[in-house]
Parts: sequence; C-alpha cells; structure tokens
Amino acid sequence: MTLIASTPKPPYYAVIFTSHRTEGDNGYGQMADRMVELASTQPGFLGVESAREDVGITVSYWSNIESIKNWKANLEHKEAQRLGRKDWYSEYKVRVSKVERDYEI
Amino acid sequence: MTLIASTPKPPYYAVIFTSHRTEGDNGYGQMADRMVELASTQPGFLGVESAREDVGITVSYWSNIESIKNWKANLEHKEAQRLGRKDWYSEYKVRVSKVERDYEI
Repeated sequence: MTLIASTPKPPYYAVIFTSHRTEGDNGYGQMADRMVELASTQPGFLGVESAREDVGITVSYWSNIESIKNWKANLEHKEAQRLGRKDWYSEYKVRVSKVERDYEI
Repeated sequence: MTLIASTPKPPYYAVIFTSHRTEGDNGYGQMADRMVELASTQPGFLGVESAREDVGITVSYWSNIESIKNWKANLEHKEAQRLGRKDWYSEYKVRVSKVERDYEI
C-alpha cells in the first residue's frame, strides 16, 4: 500500500514518472516491487508515492540531484529501464523537479 | 481519460497533490471534474495528470510560480479547497516544484 510520503522540509527533489503500460504483466509487477525495495535502500532516498488508472504516476523523492543520478545509473535499475522501454511501457515521461515548498493537512 | 501531459521544454513548474479520500462521494467527482476544466482555462496552465489507487496523485503543470499563486487564489478553487479540507480528504500534501529537466519515450 502506498502512503503519502513523509518528506523533510524543502528543498528536496521529486522525480515524476508518468507512464502508459502495455498489455499483460510480462514480469512487470515483480520488477516494480523490486525497484521500490531497491530504491528505498539508496543514499538520499526520501520516499515514493504511486497510483495507476489511465496513466501511472510514480513520484519518488530524493535529498539532492546527485542521489537521483546515482539511482538512474544503478546497474539493476538500468536493466529495469531497458525492459521498461522494450516491454512494459508504450509511453513514459520522466520529470526531475526541485520541491521549493509544501503544505498539508 | 488522463493522458501524459505535453509540456514544453523545462524549466516549468509542477504542483504535486497527493491525497487520501474519505468514504463516499459527497459531491467530490463533480467538483474534481469542474476543477480540471477551470484550471485548464487559467493563464500559465500547461497540463494535468491524475491517478488514484491507495493514494490519489494529481500533478498539474504551470509556466511559472505566479500562475500557481493565481490558481490557488481563484475564488471557485478556494471554495473547492475548503470543501476538500472539510469533506473529501482525510489527508493531503501539496508540493510545489520546479521541473529542471525531462525525458521520454
């Protein structure tokens, strides 16, 4: 179950990953779970939120841009990215953004 | 149906709204549709993406911080925000972020 991430006081970074899935699982579910587990162990990881209806949106939060670069270059993650482009996503967009302020109830 | 938003070359802004809904509709669906329609007419609006499972994530994209401030202060939107705090959301978090780079397939 995805919760609202408990992130520190800004500034920090958000990676917004929006995607359309192809038909069928093709190993996606298992890899998606593994990537959340693996991301959670990376330096600078702050949290993740995810939901899918017509589009899937996964937002991961990071302390700084260096931690995002390291995660993007992680070997197991690079293999997941390759399979994502090949098998799992018909379309996706990744946006790297700096959170400047936040508020909540 | 929500699609992946066609946004211009960065920089631009993303407002990440993550929420938990209360039970029952209580007028939420109609107001949510109206807010997307109304946001789309605001100066600086670039697009919106939305999905809900355990959490709801709505990301709206804006040209600049001024357009976000104007949208937050819109009277009809302020009434929706009030009802959101009162009736529709048990919890939410809003993060205002500056998109620095993006890439896609």
